[in-house]
Amino acid sequence: MRDYDVIVVGAGHAGCEAALASARLGMKTAIFTITLDNIGMMSCNPSLGGPAKSHLVKEIDALGGEMACNMDKSFIQMRILNTKKGPAVRSLRAQADRKVYSREMKKTVENQENLDIIQDIVTELKTENGKVTGISTKTGLEFTAKVVILATGTFLKGLMHIGDRKIKGGRMGELSSEELSDSLAKEGLKIGRFKTGTPPRVDIRTINLDILEEQPGETEKLLKFSARTKDEDIKGRKQLSCYLTRTTPNIHSIILSNLDKAPMYNGSIDSTGPRYCPSIEDKVVKFSEKDSHHLFLEPEGFDTSEVYISGLSTSFPAEIQQKIVNNVIGLENAHIMRYGYAVEYDYVDPSGLKYTLESRAVENLYLAGQINGTSGYEEAAAQGLVAGVNAVQKLKNKEPLILDRADSYIGTMIDDLINKEIMEPYRMFTARSEYRLILREDNADLRLAETGYKIGLVSEEEYKKTVHKRESVKKIIEILENTKLGTSNGRLVEILDKYGDSLKSGTTLKETLRRPKVTYDDIKYIAGIMNDVPDLSYDEDIEYQTEVQVKYEGYIQKSYQIIERQKRLEEKMIPENFDYNRMLGITREAKQRLGEKRPHNIGQASRIVGVTPADVSVLLMYLEGVLS
Amino acid sequence: MRDYDVIVVGAGHAGCEAALASARLGMKTAIFTITLDNIGMMSCNPSLGGPAKSHLVKEIDALGGEMACNMDKSFIQMRILNTKKGPAVRSLRAQADRKVYSREMKKTVENQENLDIIQDIVTELKTENGKVTGISTKTGLEFTAKVVILATGTFLKGLMHIGDRKIKGGRMGELSSEELSDSLAKEGLKIGRFKTGTPPRVDIRTINLDILEEQPGETEKLLKFSARTKDEDIKGRKQLSCYLTRTTPNIHSIILSNLDKAPMYNGSIDSTGPRYCPSIEDKVVKFSEKDSHHLFLEPEGFDTSEVYISGLSTSFPAEIQQKIVNNVIGLENAHIMRYGYAVEYDYVDPSGLKYTLESRAVENLYLAGQINGTSGYEEAAAQGLVAGVNAVQKLKNKEPLILDRADSYIGTMIDDLINKEIMEPYRMFTARSEYRLILREDNADLRLAETGYKIGLVSEEEYKKTVHKRESVKKIIEILENTKLGTSNGRLVEILDKYGDSLKSGTTLKETLRRPKVTYDDIKYIAGIMNDVPDLSYDEDIEYQTEVQVKYEGYIQKSYQIIERQKRLEEKMIPENFDYNRMLGITREAKQRLGEKRPHNIGQASRIVGVTPADVSVLLMYLEGVLS
Repeated sequence: MRDYDVIVVGAGHAGCEAALASARLGMKTAIFTITLDNIGMMSCNPSLGGPAKSHLVKEIDALGGEMACNMDKSFIQMRILNTKKGPAVRSLRAQADRKVYSREMKKTVENQENLDIIQDIVTELKTENGKVTGISTKTGLEFTAKVVILATGTFLKGLMHIGDRKIKGGRMGELSSEELSDSLAKEGLKIGRFKTGTPPRVDIRTINLDILEEQPGETEKLLKFSARTKDEDIKGRKQLSCYLTRTTPNIHSIILSNLDKAPMYNGSIDSTGPRYCPSIEDKVVKFSEKDSHHLFLEPEGFDTSEVYISGLSTSFPAEIQQKIVNNVIGLENAHIMRYGYAVEYDYVDPSGLKYTLESRAVENLYLAGQINGTSGYEEAAAQGLVAGVNAVQKLKNKEPLILDRADSYIGTMIDDLINKEIMEPYRMFTARSEYRLILREDNADLRLAETGYKIGLVSEEEYKKTVHKRESVKKIIEILENTKLGTSNGRLVEILDKYGDSLKSGTTLKETLRRPKVTYDDIKYIAGIMNDVPDLSYDEDIEYQTEVQVKYEGYIQKSYQIIERQKRLEEKMIPENFDYNRMLGITREAKQRLGEKRPHNIGQASRIVGVTPADVSVLLMYLEGVLS
Repeated sequence: MRDYDVIVVGAGHAGCEAALASARLGMKTAIFTITLDNIGMMSCNPSLGGPAKSHLVKEIDALGGEMACNMDKSFIQMRILNTKKGPAVRSLRAQADRKVYSREMKKTVENQENLDIIQDIVTELKTENGKVTGISTKTGLEFTAKVVILATGTFLKGLMHIGDRKIKGGRMGELSSEELSDSLAKEGLKIGRFKTGTPPRVDIRTINLDILEEQPGETEKLLKFSARTKDEDIKGRKQLSCYLTRTTPNIHSIILSNLDKAPMYNGSIDSTGPRYCPSIEDKVVKFSEKDSHHLFLEPEGFDTSEVYISGLSTSFPAEIQQKIVNNVIGLENAHIMRYGYAVEYDYVDPSGLKYTLESRAVENLYLAGQINGTSGYEEAAAQGLVAGVNAVQKLKNKEPLILDRADSYIGTMIDDLINKEIMEPYRMFTARSEYRLILREDNADLRLAETGYKIGLVSEEEYKKTVHKRESVKKIIEILENTKLGTSNGRLVEILDKYGDSLKSGTTLKETLRRPKVTYDDIKYIAGIMNDVPDLSYDEDIEYQTEVQVKYEGYIQKSYQIIERQKRLEEKMIPENFDYNRMLGITREAKQRLGEKRPHNIGQASRIVGVTPADVSVLLMYLEGVLS
C-alpha cells in the first residue's frame, strides 16, 4: 500500500495535472495534499486565460491535460479578448465558479484509475545516492516512490503579511509546510524566496453596480477551452457579468502617504513579487504619472456574494485596505469579506532543472509550478503536465517530452526558466515568444495533439479530429489556390466591388481572401455562385484556421525570416549611446534593463533578464533602420 | 464600518445560527471566520439527527433557526430510526453532502440582511468594567460590539494528535486560534481542555461493497427536517446508501497490543473526550467483553469518493490506522484518504453561564457550542440560536428566551450545562430528559413555534400552520371522544373483528384508536362508513400527532405524575447496599457513577454527574417496588 511509482506533492493546478498524467499513463500514483477540501483551489483570481495564458491552456488541452476541460465545467463567464488585434494575441478568458472548479477537479482526481489521494503534509524527501527513494510525512508515514514530483505552490514555509502582522500558512486559514524545503536544501537544491499577493474580496451586496460598466460574457457564440468539451455540455449555461471600475487620485494619496506601513516598502518583506501582477502600492509608486488604474470586479461563483477585485492586490494593513477599497468608484460602501495579503514562500531555483523538469541535483525528482518560481495557474498546470509525462517516460525508458520554443508557449516557458536568471515570479506573455505569430491559440491542437496522442494522453478519436482539421485546411487552401475569379460573372464583380476592391480576372480565391475586408464567409459565398467549386463549408474552427493561415501567411513567413536573421545577427553591434526610450513595441521592462546594462551587441542584449526574444526583434528593426 | 451590535466569532453550526438569529432580529451583526471557504463545515460525521439530536434539530426549526432547512437542501439520504420503538425515540436521521451543506449555509449567511461576514482570526475580547466593548483581530483591526458571541468550536489552541505527532490547528489543514482563550482567561472565564476525535475516511472505490449490508434511504415517504421545506424541493432527490460493517477480533488485538502508541493511553493527551462518541481504542478497552463493534460507512457526498467510517474514531499512528481499517470486513483493500486524529481544544466551564448563555463573568458575552463543553452539531446549533436570540432580547430590553426542561431538549441541555459538573464533552440523549414522553420530535412545533413567532424568527404564515395543527388535533380528538360505535352496523363489526378485538357498543372512537393494532387510518375508514361523522382526513402530520396523543395519553400523564412524585421523593432514602448493577433501563454511566458515589438519598443521586433525571425515575421505580 505504501509503494508508488510516482508521488506528487501538492494538489493544486500543477499537482493535479502531474498526478493525472502519471496515473493515466499507467503509473501507480499518489497525490498528497494538506487538506482534501481544497484540491484544485484557485487561491487568487477566479479566472483563467487571457493572452499567452489561454494559449497555455489550449496547449495543455492539446497534450491531453485537464485544465481546459475543468474550466469548461465550471465557468460563469467566457469571452474572447483582442478580437480586433490579430490572431496571435486573440485569446479566450473565463471566469470560474471557484468552488465548482475545485469540486470538479477533485471529482476527476478521485475517479482517476491508478491514483490514490492522501491528506497529509510531506516533510521529507528520501534519497539514496542522489536518487529519489520516497518521502515521509507529518503523520509519521513513509512511502516509497520511484519518482517524486513537487508541486507545493506557496506552501513551503508560507508566511502571510498584512501590514505588520505575520501569519504562518500557505493560504489564509490554512497550514503551511514547514519542513520540506529544509530537506530539499540538504539534497543540494538551491532555495530562494519569492512573494506574491492577493486583493481583498468584497460583498456584492455592498457594491454600487448601477454606476459601473458591465462586462457580460459572450452569449451569441459557444466558447470553450477544450476540444473535448461537447457543445451540449455548455449550451445554455447561465453567465455572470464582471464590472469595470478604477482607482481614484484619493487612493493614490492614501497609498503614498502610508508607504511606511506597506510590508513591501518598509523592509518587512524583502523577497521579490511578480512584476506583472504588482500590488496596487507598487503600481502607484512605479507608475506615478498615472492617476488611475483599471480594476475589474469579478464574481467568485454563482452561489456566493464574494467578489474579487482584480488589480487591487495589496498587503497594506487591513485598516488602510478598507480606506483604499472605499475610495474605488462604486465601492464607496463596500464591505470587505477577505482582506488582501502578501505571501512569502520558498521556491527552488529553476536553473537547476533539466528540460524535462527533472532536477539536476536529485535523479527522479521533478518540480512543477510555483516551486519553480513561476506565477499563474496556467503556467503551473503546464509544468505539472510536462513533469507528470516526463516522470512516466523516464520510468518507461521512453523518449522524454521536450517542447521547443518554436512548438509552444510551454516550451518557451521551460526554456526561459532554465536559461534565464529568474529574479521574480515568472509569468507568461505573448511578448516572451519570438514565434508568437506561429504559436497561436487557434493552432495549439495542430502543433501538439500528435505529441499528446503519441504519449498516450490524447485518444485516437480526439487525435483524428486534429488530423481532419489539418487535412481539411490543406485541401481548402489548395482549392483556393487553384480557383480563379472570372470578371465575366457580373454578380461576382458586384460582390467584390462592395469591398472597394477591383479584382483582376485571374485572381485566385486565396489572393482574394488575403484582402483585409474579405472574410472566409465571403469566399464561401463566392465559391457558391461559381461553377465547379466544391462546397467550402466546414466546421467553424477549420474555416477560421484557413482564414488565419491564408491571411497571415506573409507575416508568418516574415516571422521565420526574422528569427533566422536574428540568429545571424547575434554579433550585431549596438551604438554606445543608443536611445532605448524612443523605441516603440518593446516592453517597459526591456527598456529599463537595456538602459541599465547597455549591452554592446545583440547577443548580449538577448541574454539580459527581462529582455524577451520579441524585444530583440524590435531592437534589430531599429538598428537596421526598418523602424526609426 | 467597524461598529456592530453583535459580533459572532466562528461560522460553524453554532456561529451561523447565532449570527442569523441576531441579524434576522434586526441587529447589525458581523460573523468572523478563519476561512470563508469552510463556513458551516461538518468537521466530523456527515450527518444530522438520530435520537435526541433530531429532536434538537426540530426544536431549532420550530424556533426559527436554520439547521433543519439547510439539511433539507443538502441531504443525500434520509430515514427514520426507531419506527417500531414508540414516538419518544422515533427520530429522523440524514446524511449530508458535506460540501453542499457548507455551500448552502454560506449562501444563506451571505444573503442575510444586516449580516457582514469577515475572514479574520479574533485574538482578543475587549471589555470595560466587566462589560463587552468589542474585539481585535489577527490582521490588526478593532471592532466595537455591544455583544460578542463566542462559537469557536475546536479552534481555541486546537492541537491535533496522530500517534506521537502533534499538529497545531483547529481542523486538519487549518489554522488554530492561539490568542483568544488567554484573553478570555484574563477576563475571569474558567478555561478547560477537552478532546474529540474523528475517524479515517476511505476511498469508496477500494471498498468491497458487495459483501456489506446496504442501508438505503427512505424512498416511499418524503422526509424532511424543516416545516418550511416544500415537498417539491425534495421530491425526486437522488439518495445514496450507507453500508453496515463491523470490526473483527483481529482489530481488537491490534488495538490492545498497540495501546502504548495511542495518545489517549500513553499520556500524551490527558484531556477528556466524549464518553458517547468514544474512539475505537476506547471501545475495545472499555467493552472488552465484546469482540465486534458495528461500523457505518457513510458517503460524504454525491461528488466525492470519500467515505466516513462512523464508529472508528481514532488517534492511533497512521500506520496502525491502516492496519485497523484493513481488518474491517469489506475494507480489506481500502485506501485511507484522510487519517483519523484527535484534537484537543480549550473550552470554557459552562457552570459560569446564565440560562441565556450569557457569561456570568463578563456582561454581554455569550458562548455557544463546543466552547461550552458540548459535542455535536445539533447541540452547537441549538446553543447558537439561543445565544443569538438572547443577545438581541437583551439589547432590546425584552424578555430573555429561557427554555425549561419541560419545554424542550434545548432547555434540558442548557440546564444540564449550567448545573451539572461537565467533566467530558456533553452530548444529548433522550435519556437525559425526564420529560422524554412529552418532548417528542413530532410535537416540537407545538411546543416551541409560538415562542419562535413571538421572538420574531418564525413567520406568521409558519406559525399559523402550527396553530392549525394544534386546533385540528384538538378538534379531531373531540370528535373521537364524542363518537360512539354501534354494533348494529355489520360492516363495522367485521372491520374491528379483524384486529381480534370485540368492541362493545358505545365504545368511543378515541378508545378504539387507543387499542394497539388500530391505526388512525382505520379510524378514518370507520368514520367514513358511519353516519354523520365529519371527514377525518388531515395532513399526515396532524393525523400522526392525533394518533400519538391518543395512544400515549396514559403514558404521558403517568410521566407527569412520576415527575411530581419524584420531586416529593427527593428525600427518599437509598439502602446502603443497593445493587445498581441489577437495574434495567438505566444507563451504563449512571450505574457506574452511582456505584462509585453510593448516594444516601434520591436528591443526592440526582445531582451526580452522569446520572440523568431519567435514570432517577428508574431508580425510584426500583426503590418503590414498581420494578424489581
